[in-house]
Amino acid sequence: MTRSSDSQGDTAADDVERGGGGENIAPTPYVLSEAPGPLSRAELVAVDAWWRAANYLSVGQIYLMGNPLLRTPLVAEDIKPRLLGHFGTVPGLNLVWAHANRVIRARGLNAVYVAGPGHGGPGPNACAWLENAYADLEPDIPRDLAGMGAFFHRFSFPGGVPSHCAPETPGSLNEGGELGYSLLHAYGAALDNPELVVFCVIGDGEAETGPLAGSWHANKFLNAGRDGAVVPILALNEYKIANPTILARMPKPELVELLRGYGYEPLIVSGNDPAPVHQAMATAMDACLDRIARFQRAAREDGDGTRPRWPMIVMHTPKGWTCPPVVDGHRVEGTFRAHQVPLPNARTNPVHRRVLELWLRSYRPEELFDGDGAPVGVLLEQVPELPMSLNPVANGGLLVRDLDLPDWREYCVDVPTPGAVEHEATRVLGSWLRDVTARNPHNFLTFAPDELVSNRLQDVLEVTGRDWQEEVGRFDVDLSTTGRVVEVLSEHMCEGLLEGYLLTGRHGVFSCYEAFIHIVDSMFNQHAKWLDASLRVPWRRKIPSLNYLLTSHVWRQDHNGFTHQDPGFLDVVANKSPDIVRVYLPPDANTLLSTYDHCLRSLHYANVVVAGKQPSPDWLSAEQAGLHCTRGLGIWEWACHRDDPGTTPDVVLGCAGDVPTLEALAAAAILRDRLPDLRVRFVNVVDLMRMLPADEHPHGLPDAEFDALFTTDRPVIFAFHGYPWLVHRLTYRRTNHHNLHVRGYKEKGTTTTPFDMVMLNDLDRFHLVIDVIDRVPGLRERAAGLRQEIVDARLIARRWTREHGADIPVVADWVWPDAAIPTPE
Amino acid sequence: MTRSSDSQGDTAADDVERGGGGENIAPTPYVLSEAPGPLSRAELVAVDAWWRAANYLSVGQIYLMGNPLLRTPLVAEDIKPRLLGHFGTVPGLNLVWAHANRVIRARGLNAVYVAGPGHGGPGPNACAWLENAYADLEPDIPRDLAGMGAFFHRFSFPGGVPSHCAPETPGSLNEGGELGYSLLHAYGAALDNPELVVFCVIGDGEAETGPLAGSWHANKFLNAGRDGAVVPILALNEYKIANPTILARMPKPELVELLRGYGYEPLIVSGNDPAPVHQAMATAMDACLDRIARFQRAAREDGDGTRPRWPMIVMHTPKGWTCPPVVDGHRVEGTFRAHQVPLPNARTNPVHRRVLELWLRSYRPEELFDGDGAPVGVLLEQVPELPMSLNPVANGGLLVRDLDLPDWREYCVDVPTPGAVEHEATRVLGSWLRDVTARNPHNFLTFAPDELVSNRLQDVLEVTGRDWQEEVGRFDVDLSTTGRVVEVLSEHMCEGLLEGYLLTGRHGVFSCYEAFIHIVDSMFNQHAKWLDASLRVPWRRKIPSLNYLLTSHVWRQDHNGFTHQDPGFLDVVANKSPDIVRVYLPPDANTLLSTYDHCLRSLHYANVVVAGKQPSPDWLSAEQAGLHCTRGLGIWEWACHRDDPGTTPDVVLGCAGDVPTLEALAAAAILRDRLPDLRVRFVNVVDLMRMLPADEHPHGLPDAEFDALFTTDRPVIFAFHGYPWLVHRLTYRRTNHHNLHVRGYKEKGTTTTPFDMVMLNDLDRFHLVIDVIDRVPGLRERAAGLRQEIVDARLIARRWTREHGADIPVVADWVWPDAAIPTPE
Repeated sequence: MTRSSDSQGDTAADDVERGGGGENIAPTPYVLSEAPGPLSRAELVAVDAWWRAANYLSVGQIYLMGNPLLRTPLVAEDIKPRLLGHFGTVPGLNLVWAHANRVIRARGLNAVYVAGPGHGGPGPNACAWLENAYADLEPDIPRDLAGMGAFFHRFSFPGGVPSHCAPETPGSLNEGGELGYSLLHAYGAALDNPELVVFCVIGDGEAETGPLAGSWHANKFLNAGRDGAVVPILALNEYKIANPTILARMPKPELVELLRGYGYEPLIVSGNDPAPVHQAMATAMDACLDRIARFQRAAREDGDGTRPRWPMIVMHTPKGWTCPPVVDGHRVEGTFRAHQVPLPNARTNPVHRRVLELWLRSYRPEELFDGDGAPVGVLLEQVPELPMSLNPVANGGLLVRDLDLPDWREYCVDVPTPGAVEHEATRVLGSWLRDVTARNPHNFLTFAPDELVSNRLQDVLEVTGRDWQEEVGRFDVDLSTTGRVVEVLSEHMCEGLLEGYLLTGRHGVFSCYEAFIHIVDSMFNQHAKWLDASLRVPWRRKIPSLNYLLTSHVWRQDHNGFTHQDPGFLDVVANKSPDIVRVYLPPDANTLLSTYDHCLRSLHYANVVVAGKQPSPDWLSAEQAGLHCTRGLGIWEWACHRDDPGTTPDVVLGCAGDVPTLEALAAAAILRDRLPDLRVRFVNVVDLMRMLPADEHPHGLPDAEFDALFTTDRPVIFAFHGYPWLVHRLTYRRTNHHNLHVRGYKEKGTTTTPFDMVMLNDLDRFHLVIDVIDRVPGLRERAAGLRQEIVDARLIARRWTREHGADIPVVADWVWPDAAIPTPE
Repeated sequence: MTRSSDSQGDTAADDVERGGGGENIAPTPYVLSEAPGPLSRAELVAVDAWWRAANYLSVGQIYLMGNPLLRTPLVAEDIKPRLLGHFGTVPGLNLVWAHANRVIRARGLNAVYVAGPGHGGPGPNACAWLENAYADLEPDIPRDLAGMGAFFHRFSFPGGVPSHCAPETPGSLNEGGELGYSLLHAYGAALDNPELVVFCVIGDGEAETGPLAGSWHANKFLNAGRDGAVVPILALNEYKIANPTILARMPKPELVELLRGYGYEPLIVSGNDPAPVHQAMATAMDACLDRIARFQRAAREDGDGTRPRWPMIVMHTPKGWTCPPVVDGHRVEGTFRAHQVPLPNARTNPVHRRVLELWLRSYRPEELFDGDGAPVGVLLEQVPELPMSLNPVANGGLLVRDLDLPDWREYCVDVPTPGAVEHEATRVLGSWLRDVTARNPHNFLTFAPDELVSNRLQDVLEVTGRDWQEEVGRFDVDLSTTGRVVEVLSEHMCEGLLEGYLLTGRHGVFSCYEAFIHIVDSMFNQHAKWLDASLRVPWRRKIPSLNYLLTSHVWRQDHNGFTHQDPGFLDVVANKSPDIVRVYLPPDANTLLSTYDHCLRSLHYANVVVAGKQPSPDWLSAEQAGLHCTRGLGIWEWACHRDDPGTTPDVVLGCAGDVPTLEALAAAAILRDRLPDLRVRFVNVVDLMRMLPADEHPHGLPDAEFDALFTTDRPVIFAFHGYPWLVHRLTYRRTNHHNLHVRGYKEKGTTTTPFDMVMLNDLDRFHLVIDVIDRVPGLRERAAGLRQEIVDARLIARRWTREHGADIPVVADWVWPDAAIPTPE
């Protein structure tokens, strides 16, 4: 008998039960039909056995908290009180895994599996259990009856494992909670992994997301010689939670054109009768891997540099395939109703419970598991030597090799005295990144959304090109099929490819305009959650940090304007677990070098570094920069005035960020010049998390040290790179918080010059001086004349920018230590 | 003579200048070649004149701050000190505008123009000036020589207008600062606008972004009968800032397959000789509009419901077409070097300045503008009766019709006493939204990423279907070609289509899982900036608010787990201009109704409403809810204990959000029961911005009122929906801030039950009681026994959830006003 689960057809199952909600039909065991194809009957039976076993174990995870092998009829107490996980996508995931194992064994592949569809965790979990990965990784889940029970119990149960693929899932390198990033993670994993094959299942719902829609083009960056292969498998099961999918309902020829237009050769596997589908899937898998092998041979042996038309599979099978066809009178299998839990009331409704039991038994568990609950031989034989669930590529920390980093000090600019020279900070960093790139030709990549040169990292192009597998136009420059810079005008692609690269144990940098990093807020959130959660998974090893270089930042958007002004990524980052987030605001080129050296040595953080690309004064020598960055914050003695040891200053000028540091120093110069009696302390902050209390962040400064720096009772005027409230949020528990006055960015954009921009936000030197005068007790009266002079100076400067379209020279040409105030012409 | 600007060929221009940096070649005036096609010679000359005029005006904006019509040779002072704006995309934008005007006039179209390519502002600005839109809107920029000078001067100049399309651009409805959203805005504008044609130019760089890549599928939601038409024009000028584009370098047949796969019929316009390109563009424009008219007739007259294969144009023309072919020895026209400013040193380098002058003169301005600087007749004749730059559709506030809203009170649930009943709040809202939908069949839409039913808004489907122009499968439900719910598994598409709909004066709601709204953080930022900036543009009218309904929120993610927990969108929103952002946390169904009624009546805000979809107790009657929401926050007398008028309580229990309110009330009940002497005030906050000082937000509560509510010296225990620091950031300037203790969400996810989730974050009733005991002076000693009992109760509750997979009944079944503490079994 063949399966009757035709999603377009009627059901002719034997078992019909009727409950209060209408007809219920349980699935019946099926006998594999005869189907021609590459699989022998024994192979067909074997692969189908794996599929049934994995499906059984998936249903078990979703429903059972006891009685895992149905030794007795199911009772209410065997069923979890809350039924979670999505069955709809699981049979497809298990089908792919079963067939991947066949080709892995046949071809000796080094393969990993990326599960894109949402909440499909039961599938990969089940296959990992069959592969004994749990026993290897988590001794309390052996591959026997007790282990099966524990395995079922903990799925989507308090204190247990999530319903989607996650750090807890053996063999997963993709956080499946938020949809859209599977293909990017797959491609990122394949880069620089020439022997790797990544089977990437993409949900047809997930495929509607923008990031996934754009990420098909990642094949334009995959070099058949240098990189591994990705086998995208579009799981076209036609439905999302409540709707059909676009890709399922558009005319099939259009779908084929779309996928061919993305550069793929789609192989269609379609059906609802297991045997022919197995044969079709085996055929498609072989065709894919043959084709991949041919392309890789052509590239590696014949030097063929043209981008291949990589193969992919469209797996068109029923949603919730093998689940109850009808529940409470509604068609379920093959419809959106199979998306989540097909029998929602199995604990309380005896009819549902009976259908559940028949459903479980339809997989014939007695053929699949022995008396001890262990998988039978036909399953064990299918476990590859290197199972996907135990491939170290998916636990990338196992494979990390430290970068060979040149000594950053040798790239430092010479700073004879503070402010004596100026440089483009990111350009200086670029000279070091050039040599990092050259020294680490197989495990370091730089990603940028068409902004590498704009962000002044062009020196990197002296030693490599931009990764490009397409035609090269006559006037194109710096493109290379083996380029170690990936540039594509998609922040999503940059982030996703880098994540995939990091998750598999390699290193990289993402350089981005500051405002537009918000485009990947949610991807960052998910990666941060992966990092945090994997700290709690004992067998997960730390992976290289996710390093951002945010430049073209908020304070230098004079021509790009309001839309390019947003320093709020720092706020998004600060909300994540203190165990894994770090924020650095180096004030000049040498501190940027020191900071980045630290970042590229670190593991398992998200390091956010904000630095300008415009020429800007240098303040610290290499030695001073190293010391300052090690401390994370500190007093700049040379910028203080009368801040004698053992005394308390009248005011503290604090700053974080390059432009705020410049303005704060210019304010300090004015104060020193014009109010020589005022005792001014100058504090610069590189490592923003030092502002947090020590019990809130590993970098948090102990209260006593914080108080020693910022005093307990003197006004603190703090010039900050981002939204001012972030500093308050970090410091509200500090003793002197009520004296803290922060100037930062507030939304009030218009087209400006650089100085106009800081003036608009009261972050300019003049306003900082006014802030000091207004906050130091008695000073407003004492320095009334100076205050008026400064107020006038601001007006003059503002007027100048509006008239001349440039900063007033007395500001533009200012250098430390001269104080300079524009006077009426 | 024909143009010699073949991007693949050599240049044979007459004018060659040599400077220090290598050869410089200026463009030369061209004579239109003879080219066959639909345009008569006169039409060809006319459309080319428009193109030249717009190009001249574009170059003028980028470079000139004086001497707009070159009455004298250019001198340094005529050139702006900072050269901004991107010329590369401008000739293409102007070409489309010129040809759009022809078909608008010929066919009497009602059309708007969306410019996707980055920093292409000079083009639409120029066309608007030619159409006299500035004179209409901004009297200081008349269409004469003085106006031209002012128009040039203010472009990308301090205090002036941005370099990309923005609220300041007449006729723009698309904020062009961040790339990727043009096509979504175009489709959003076309929905429910049956007579509208949207010409949407998409940059080939922009096309690499994920959101744009996904948004081609917006054609699956466009009904040829109900909606207008979008004409996508892919500006394939081959280059981004520094790289070729993917779409330009992939094989042309692949590009055609891709676009056909997206469901379009691409018409290719290719070339670099103006005359044949004009003829090809005219042919393509006519073909598009003929095809559109045919489809619309078929739908409107013959009732044809199949989704048409809509036409689109691929405009393959050189980057920076008509700019200097060679600058400093580098090929510029037709390469990435033309992307930004082709002659970067025109102010300081006399050779560049000379080339700039020849470039400007190559457009033959003397033929285009009369002695007064006004456009000549051949240009004026091309201005349509309703020019795109003055189409009210692009200033949607002009077209707003208030919604016909049913009285929300009639949908309220009956709440005889607080907590006596419970409802799914969003479901109650859904019954009201159903009737909002029914009463406003042409200007209200609901958007959701496949979550409408999951978010309990299914009642809406009683009066409409889901918009769907594809095939309908046998088991698909609730799909309709005229559906007023747009569901697509892409937050980007939901947001972008809704933005386009709002920007053109209609109303809508975006219902989304709370965690995944971060996917559109950056789109929200850009829309918020549009709203804020347009308040400063005198002729812009307020548009309907952007209404979010965030549900499936952080506190009810027990099964979806850690990846679905993120309340941080509130932090992103709070960073935007107080003039346009509002955040509401209604505690129950009736307050949600009242809040949403307010939101749908409001204009020009981003309203973020967070509400649960799970059954939850109702606290306020309709009348109480209306009053409470009007106040935005207030004391709930019935939940206070011994909070007598004229006295100060011992402690304030504050809360914002539905789950925090429930827990805070349960804590209040325990305190009342077990510490009857304690004076407890209970304050609930609906409108989060009330927490800000009055000078920081229009909704900010004056300090005196805040102090009256929260006291100046008593501990405040505040149970908060989001990250706790947000409340601190809002209140750090309040008198009693140092006594404020906020419990909210912190990253520490695991799989939980609902009560386990709040316990993990110390937001649970028991911990709130412990907080009170620990913070009220002397109470810790006095109530030591109770404290221990509560600590034990928490442990019992935690253990229960881990064992049973469900909340402990004493919590799950708890109802106000009984206090209930689990005791050891």
